Amino acid sequence: MVDGVRLGSIAAGLRYHGRPDVLVAELAPGTTVAGVFTSSLCPSAPVDWCRRVLPGGAARALVCNAGNANAFTGQEGERSVAATVETVAAALNCSPEEVFVASTGVIGEPLDNSQLVIAVDSAAAALDQPDAVRWQDAARAICTTDTFAKGASASAGPASVVGIAKGSGMIAPDMATMLSFVFTDAALPSAAAQRALTTAVNASFNRVTVDSDTSTSDTVLLFCTGAAGAPQDMEQFQQSLNTVCLDLAHQIVRDGEGATKFVTVTVTGAADDQAAERIARAIADSPLVKTAVAAEDANWGRIVMAVGKAGQAADRDRLAIWIGSEQAAADGQLAPGYSEERATEHLRQPEVTLTADVGVGNGSATVWTCDLTHGYIDINAGYRS
Amino acid sequence: MVDGVRLGSIAAGLRYHGRPDVLVAELAPGTTVAGVFTSSLCPSAPVDWCRRVLPGGAARALVCNAGNANAFTGQEGERSVAATVETVAAALNCSPEEVFVASTGVIGEPLDNSQLVIAVDSAAAALDQPDAVRWQDAARAICTTDTFAKGASASAGPASVVGIAKGSGMIAPDMATMLSFVFTDAALPSAAAQRALTTAVNASFNRVTVDSDTSTSDTVLLFCTGAAGAPQDMEQFQQSLNTVCLDLAHQIVRDGEGATKFVTVTVTGAADDQAAERIARAIADSPLVKTAVAAEDANWGRIVMAVGKAGQAADRDRLAIWIGSEQAAADGQLAPGYSEERATEHLRQPEVTLTADVGVGNGSATVWTCDLTHGYIDINAGYRS
Repeated sequence: MVDGVRLGSIAAGLRYHGRPDVLVAELAPGTTVAGVFTSSLCPSAPVDWCRRVLPGGAARALVCNAGNANAFTGQEGERSVAATVETVAAALNCSPEEVFVASTGVIGEPLDNSQLVIAVDSAAAALDQPDAVRWQDAARAICTTDTFAKGASASAGPASVVGIAKGSGMIAPDMATMLSFVFTDAALPSAAAQRALTTAVNASFNRVTVDSDTSTSDTVLLFCTGAAGAPQDMEQFQQSLNTVCLDLAHQIVRDGEGATKFVTVTVTGAADDQAAERIARAIADSPLVKTAVAAEDANWGRIVMAVGKAGQAADRDRLAIWIGSEQAAADGQLAPGYSEERATEHLRQPEVTLTADVGVGNGSATVWTCDLTHGYIDINAGYRS
Repeated sequence: MVDGVRLGSIAAGLRYHGRPDVLVAELAPGTTVAGVFTSSLCPSAPVDWCRRVLPGGAARALVCNAGNANAFTGQEGERSVAATVETVAAALNCSPEEVFVASTGVIGEPLDNSQLVIAVDSAAAALDQPDAVRWQDAARAICTTDTFAKGASASAGPASVVGIAKGSGMIAPDMATMLSFVFTDAALPSAAAQRALTTAVNASFNRVTVDSDTSTSDTVLLFCTGAAGAPQDMEQFQQSLNTVCLDLAHQIVRDGEGATKFVTVTVTGAADDQAAERIARAIADSPLVKTAVAAEDANWGRIVMAVGKAGQAADRDRLAIWIGSEQAAADGQLAPGYSEERATEHLRQPEVTLTADVGVGNGSATVWTCDLTHGYIDINAGYRS
C-alpha cells in the first residue's frame, strides 16, 4: 500500500498471548523521518532514543513492542533499547541510528532482553507477510487496552499516506498519550516532513483528551520513503496527512477507556485561539461534565463551572451554551425557550456536541473527548497499564 | 459555644425535604469579617455580593441556602441576593451591607424569590434554638451531596474557634470547592482577620482536591465577634484557626464523592514549595492514580506518569517513590528490595500515603485527596448538582 515499506509482526507473548505484540517495519533506503514526542519530563527510554537519533533525519526501520513501556527503567531501559536497535540493524543491514523504537504498556518493569531480542529478530524475519494482512496485524501489534485496531489512509496525488495508532487511556493535553506511525511514499526532506507532521499533530492528536493523563511514551513518527516522488501540491499532501492524523485521533477518542459517547467541544468568542483551546480542554477534562454526558443529563451548569475554572478571559454575563443545537444559556442565564427535553434528546445520541461562546473575542477551538463511565473505573482499577 | 453568635436553621423545603436547608447566623454588633472566595471567572451572585461588601469589614448576619447555588442566574440572581439581605437586615435590624450570603446547589436555575424570602424570614425567627442542637443543624443546613455534617472547634486562650463546612464534589485547586464558615469570639480587626484566614486557607482548603473541578460558589468566611477580647498570643490563635480549617478540609476529602480512601500525597525534593505543590496536585488529580488506589493496586508507574506531566522540574534518574513506608522506586527505577506485597498491604488500609522525591531541590508540599470509584460515577451521573 505504501511503496518502500515492509511490515512484519509476530505474537511473541511478551505480555499478551494469541495476538501480535511486536512490530518491525523495514523502510527503503533514503527514507526520511519526522517525530513528535511526549511533553512528559519522565520520558521512556525509547523516547530518549528517538529524540537522540531524529536529527539524523534518516530511517531504515521502526520497531515497537506492546505490553511493557520500558519507561522508568533506568540504565537497564537504555540497554534494552540498545539491544533492540542492534538486533534490527544487524537483521536489516543498516545503522542502529536509523532504527526508531517505541514501547507501550506497563511503566517501571524491566524488559527481559534475551526474550526481546528473540522476538524482534523473529518479527524482522516475518517481513514477507502478504500486504492486506500485514497492515491490520501491524495495527493490532501495537495495541494495549485498545478494543479495536486503528488505521487510516488517504492519497495525495500519486502518493499514499497510511497511518496506524494505538491509545485509549492516558490520553491528554500536549499530545494525546498514544503511539502513531504514519507512512508515505511521498518524497520529503526531513525538515519539510517535520513541519508537516507538527502541523498535523497540533490539529489532531493534540486536540483529543480521554482522562487528562499524559504518558511517558507518546510518540508520533512520519516516515517518507520517497518512492512516489516529491509532492507536486504540498498543500494537498498536508491535507491528506491532516486527514489521516485526525481520523486516527478520533478513533482513539472513540476507543477511550469506558467511552460510550464521542463528544465534540467547541469554544468560540475567546480572547484568542489558545484561550479557546484551554477553555475547551477545561470542559472536555471536567469529570463532572463527563459524568453528566454519560448520564445523558443536560446539566449545563457544569459547563459554566468548567468555563469559570479555565482561568481564561470570559464574560459571565455574555456567556452562551448549546447542547447540540439547543441553546441552554444566553447572556449569562437560562436561555429563553430552552427545552431540557430537546437537549436530553441530543445527549441520548452517541455523538454529542457541546458549544460555549464566552463573549470576549474571536478566538475559537475544538477539542474531542469521550464521556466518563463505570467502564473507565473497571478498566483502570483492574488492568495494570 | 461562641459568644456573640446565634444560629437559626429551618427545613424550608427549597429543594431538600425533611432536613434543614436554610441557615441564618446573627452576629453581635462589632463583629469583624474576613473572606476568601472562588477563583472561578463565573462566580455566583452571592460571591459577587460578598466580595462587594467585604471591604466594609463588618458583619451582623450570615445567611446560607442549600439546593440552589444562585449561580449563572443573571440579574434575577442579583435580585435574589438583594431580597435575601433586605429580609435579614429588616429582621435583625442591621444594614444590608452587613449581611453575608452563600448559596450552594444546582447552577443556572433561578431561585423562587417569594419562597426564599419566607424561608429566610423563618430562619431568622428561629434564632432561639438551644445551643447544642443548633451547631449540628447549622452544619446540616448547608449540606448538598455531603453524607455527613462537618464541624470542628479549637480554643485559643479564652477564645473559641468553631467552624462548619460543606463540600464533597467540585473540590479542587485554588480553593477546594465548598462553603465554610468559621466563628470566633476573639477580637480581631478585619485586616488581621483577613491575614489569619488567608494563611489558614492556603494550608488547608487550598490543599485538598476531590475531582479537580472548581465551583462558582467557593466561600470561606471568618467572623470575629470580639466577646472574648483580643488574642494575647496571636500565634496561638493562628494555630487554632489552622487546626479548625485543616480538620474541616480533611472532612471534605473523607466525604469526597464515592471516596473509600483518604490519600495523603507528599512531594519532596522539588525546585521550590510551589513546584512541589503542583507535582503533588498532578498526582492527586490523576484519574489513573486515583483508580489504582481504589483498586488497591500498587501501580507506582502511574505516579511516575503524573510527576512527568506536572510540567515542573524533576530528575527522572533520581526520582524516588514510596507507597506508605515501602520504597517502590529509587534513582529512576525499581527500588532494590521493593515488595509489592507490602505496598499492597498498605493500600488495603483506609488511609493511604504516597510520597515522591523528585531529586532537584528542597521544595516540599502535601496535598490531600481521595480515590476515584464507581461511587463517584453513581453520584455524578445521577444527581443534578
